[in-house]
Amino acid sequence: MALLLWEDIAVGSTFDIGPYVVSREEILAFSRQYDPQPFHLDDGRAEESSYGGVIASGWQTGAIAQRLLVTGFLNGAASMGSPGLEALRWRRPVRPGDELRLRLRIVSKEPSPKHHDRGIVDAEHELMNQKNELVMSFRIRIMIARRRSP
Amino acid sequence: MALLLWEDIAVGSTFDIGPYVVSREEILAFSRQYDPQPFHLDDGRAEESSYGGVIASGWQTGAIAQRLLVTGFLNGAASMGSPGLEALRWRRPVRPGDELRLRLRIVSKEPSPKHHDRGIVDAEHELMNQKNELVMSFRIRIMIARRRSP
Repeated sequence: MALLLWEDIAVGSTFDIGPYVVSREEILAFSRQYDPQPFHLDDGRAEESSYGGVIASGWQTGAIAQRLLVTGFLNGAASMGSPGLEALRWRRPVRPGDELRLRLRIVSKEPSPKHHDRGIVDAEHELMNQKNELVMSFRIRIMIARRRSP
Repeated sequence: MALLLWEDIAVGSTFDIGPYVVSREEILAFSRQYDPQPFHLDDGRAEESSYGGVIASGWQTGAIAQRLLVTGFLNGAASMGSPGLEALRWRRPVRPGDELRLRLRIVSKEPSPKHHDRGIVDAEHELMNQKNELVMSFRIRIMIARRRSP
């Protein structure tokens, strides 16, 4: 299958990708390695916290959004990575058993200011849970290879 | 040990935390689970890419910064989580064997606009590699419990 190039990606297009089911074991394994705060790891202390129980690390929630982006969109495109993202908000906790979906929207595109071989697309991410509540949002820039001149 | 409260955290204070050594196995394991793009997983295709070899997922780099933040700062404070972050930039690739350090600076603080039991601190993150090159930066808001009125 030919990969989508920068020219092939239309501003305004939207994608609904998922679900990704988040297990308790996955939350605990990630938290032990990368975010060992009590409300990510310890049932007792998490219940006493303002979250009322163990919740996923926000960085794991971001990683899950990336997994959905890659399997649902980027692995069909000539992705060259990302220079960064803006305005990330963790809006609701992610809890064991949650089923997450990614609503992706291409909001703008422009040629790379630095590299002739690629363009940039701005992609708005909204990660939703099984109650259709927004749990995380951000806008990320993605570099996509351009078609070569003939 | 008493945890630091919001009132105890001084604007302008800085912390140098680390190192965290990133192994090839850790990069591949994270990429398989959360970011299965060729330049994070496949030596041959990564060498052909603009990165010239396998690099860590940007979300893994963020998770490593969080690990350093938690073990070097947050687990000594009455952390209540984060509402979000701004202006994340992935400035250089992270490669197998890299040793990362976090330069953390408290840039501002304010009472929570919503909750009387907590305040917000804004923390500038700069993640550096063993050559003292900047690999990632962002500014995150962290909620810290306030001292109760007597």
